Amino acid sequence: MGIFTSDKLDTLEELLEHELKDLYDAEHRITEPLPKMAEKATNPSLKKAFQNHLRQTEKHIERLNSVCEHRGIEPQREKCDAIVGLIKEGSEVLSAEGDNDVLDAALIAAAQRVEHYEIAGYGTARTFAQQLSDDYSAELLEQTLDEEKSTDQQLTKIAVGSVNPASAREQ
Amino acid sequence: MGIFTSDKLDTLEELLEHELKDLYDAEHRITEPLPKMAEKATNPSLKKAFQNHLRQTEKHIERLNSVCEHRGIEPQREKCDAIVGLIKEGSEVLSAEGDNDVLDAALIAAAQRVEHYEIAGYGTARTFAQQLSDDYSAELLEQTLDEEKSTDQQLTKIAVGSVNPASAREQ
Repeated sequence: MGIFTSDKLDTLEELLEHELKDLYDAEHRITEPLPKMAEKATNPSLKKAFQNHLRQTEKHIERLNSVCEHRGIEPQREKCDAIVGLIKEGSEVLSAEGDNDVLDAALIAAAQRVEHYEIAGYGTARTFAQQLSDDYSAELLEQTLDEEKSTDQQLTKIAVGSVNPASAREQ
Repeated sequence: MGIFTSDKLDTLEELLEHELKDLYDAEHRITEPLPKMAEKATNPSLKKAFQNHLRQTEKHIERLNSVCEHRGIEPQREKCDAIVGLIKEGSEVLSAEGDNDVLDAALIAAAQRVEHYEIAGYGTARTFAQQLSDDYSAELLEQTLDEEKSTDQQLTKIAVGSVNPASAREQ
């Protein structure tokens, strides 16, 4: 998160602005590996989940633009080392080889870490907006938060249900 | 996550081993900034939450040792760039100055990102253990998962309830 680019934190407005720019950077970075992850996935449900999530991510960026406009913030990206690391790890599955079900499980594991990063980020940003009585921004951030949670649950369902390298081997 | 140190992924056992070593590294890294975060926090509930979480983290490491022993794995740390970045950002609040409530809110924001990283990691590892019919490991990983979720909820409660830089300013 790009919160601490300065060594002074005086207002919640300032902290929310940093959170928004961090999420803006994260969402943009995520659009790059997602099409490749969809291509790499073998399981049809997983492939579809990544494709759907790419479309959702574009909507999330639009919402962040709306929130920034509403708050009078120039939408800018603040580089976040954590999300860079998370995406790098996810991207490394793309060049890995091996059992298809194990690779799918690895793709899900990487994607869920990114989802949880976003769940934490949007949860925090939504709470800050609520505390600032900015209902418009809180509502938009909450919508995205709900979609990130839903994607995470969907990935768990796919991991447990159809991508199961252990049971697949027993068949 | 240290999953992709090799470019070959053949079995779920191998993937679980990488997950465990990644979590082992993450838990060890977290023990370093936590006492400083507890010291930096102004809000008494937040201070206590960080102190309690340090004790919990030591228990989580013990559980990972038990899981590794049960699975015949040498407990080793695999460096994870994402958690290094997350902790680095959290540590940067330690040297920041400004409004105490805003700093507490920033500490919570950083800590919740780490919590969510662990929630994703333990969730994945637990599911892999279940798929491998390793009930012993699944049970221990689930216990830690529940504690990480509970810490995250507690931090949200503190953020909403007592650390509220916006309402504090209005008083």
